[in-house]
Amino acid sequence: MAEKDWKDCIRSLKGVVLDMCGVLYDSGEGGGVTIDGSVEAVKRIKASDLKLRFCTNETQATREQFVAELRRNGFDISVHEVFCPAPAAVAILKERDLRPHLLVHHDVVPEFDSVEKSNPNCVVIGDAADNFSYKNLNDAFRVLIGLEKPVLFSLGRGRYYKEADGLKLDVGVYMKALEYACDIEAEVVGKPAQTFFQSVLTDMGIEPQQTLMIGDDLVNDVGGAQSCGMLGLQVRTGKYRPSDEKHPTVKANGYVDNLAEAVDIILKYRAHSPFLRAWWKAQS
Amino acid sequence: MAEKDWKDCIRSLKGVVLDMCGVLYDSGEGGGVTIDGSVEAVKRIKASDLKLRFCTNETQATREQFVAELRRNGFDISVHEVFCPAPAAVAILKERDLRPHLLVHHDVVPEFDSVEKSNPNCVVIGDAADNFSYKNLNDAFRVLIGLEKPVLFSLGRGRYYKEADGLKLDVGVYMKALEYACDIEAEVVGKPAQTFFQSVLTDMGIEPQQTLMIGDDLVNDVGGAQSCGMLGLQVRTGKYRPSDEKHPTVKANGYVDNLAEAVDIILKYRAHSPFLRAWWKAQS
Repeated sequence: MAEKDWKDCIRSLKGVVLDMCGVLYDSGEGGGVTIDGSVEAVKRIKASDLKLRFCTNETQATREQFVAELRRNGFDISVHEVFCPAPAAVAILKERDLRPHLLVHHDVVPEFDSVEKSNPNCVVIGDAADNFSYKNLNDAFRVLIGLEKPVLFSLGRGRYYKEADGLKLDVGVYMKALEYACDIEAEVVGKPAQTFFQSVLTDMGIEPQQTLMIGDDLVNDVGGAQSCGMLGLQVRTGKYRPSDEKHPTVKANGYVDNLAEAVDIILKYRAHSPFLRAWWKAQS
Repeated sequence: MAEKDWKDCIRSLKGVVLDMCGVLYDSGEGGGVTIDGSVEAVKRIKASDLKLRFCTNETQATREQFVAELRRNGFDISVHEVFCPAPAAVAILKERDLRPHLLVHHDVVPEFDSVEKSNPNCVVIGDAADNFSYKNLNDAFRVLIGLEKPVLFSLGRGRYYKEADGLKLDVGVYMKALEYACDIEAEVVGKPAQTFFQSVLTDMGIEPQQTLMIGDDLVNDVGGAQSCGMLGLQVRTGKYRPSDEKHPTVKANGYVDNLAEAVDIILKYRAHSPFLRAWWKAQS
């Protein structure tokens, strides 16, 4: 199916949602490397009439630590503007009265401080990296297989990501491992889960068709957003690969070289809106 | 589909194939614990006119080590009678001129001594247990994703097995992980692969319909053997669970409490064969 061209929809936009890693920065030690023009691009959206939120599957730090790192790198971002899987999972656990066994990165454990964890009746896995030892995966498996109805939450379903020293396996790989071991299907918290995008839209108070998601991950960012009725734009930074533009099932509403180009186009097109035209007329 | 009753086929049998763990013994330290009557049962089949082979997905030791352990526990078993995935994988690697990156148990590495391993162009995973660290799985992933056409061999596809201290994740779980990470399908060496059962039949020089597989694993032993045209009998020892007898897709040709009972029935039914009846008559 041919997707709408995003440029035809820019005038009716009310909000923008940005993926973070691969759009704002490339990951690595000390907060990674900022992608050229992205600090300025965030400032320009904030100065416009568009609402802005950030939506990431980052689970190797608490949201507070993560945002502090970005602010040190010059980004004008506040904690309440950022949506991560761990706080979303905490909300679900509390709502459903579930006590998790955690298999997550050390640095994200504090996100779960307010949750009861004794005598666990579900498992939460995140991008645990080196914590994905045989023993730890086996411990998580034993909790699941011991439950009458095993419940597994996965903070994202990514296959792998790129760090300075090469590709790294992501949480989705271990989600699949536990799914197979227990013959179950995990509940994904984070992108591309519709409930996750919906929580961002609810917070912004706008409709999906008024919202543009910008990401480097074709399936999780673009495809996930589109499945909620949002527009999805892919940047050619981060994990973007040219073959994404010929993907068999997911087709973005547009492609841009980077976030700076996206913001240039958005603001240029919106500058031609009837409202601005009227305003300009009044000024002249 | 209703499966044939194995008892109706006993007279035309020419050979028996035995799974090992869960049929001969329960795994654990020092070769595990022998299942009552199984040492004697093996002796009785060997003393009959039936051919006998052993077929296991054991990949935590070389075949030599493994058979030596069983002999110490009283089993009359020789190395050449035992079919394991690692030697089968070595044969495939040599035939296809492949150089493996190994992610296997330390103790099975010597099986691959005769295989060139520099500059790998495929990955072989076995039940590596504690060797399934994040780093080791990531290293295997990087080899695969760096190949133009990734080739992954998995020594079995089991989900988990039981040891003295509880359930342990098996190789199939990590096979699924790498399959998802690289978007590929692994080639399974060992049960339930048809080629593996076929190599046992070829060695015995008999037809599948003349052969009875006896195992505790409904899917890999019984279902695998049946898919080759062999008869499949499940023992109620090892990983057997009562729910196996109501499995939605795999139905054994019969169920027995243990190997000793299976051998009793086989020898009793064969004692009524025309040949033996004639022999008895001549003796009396």
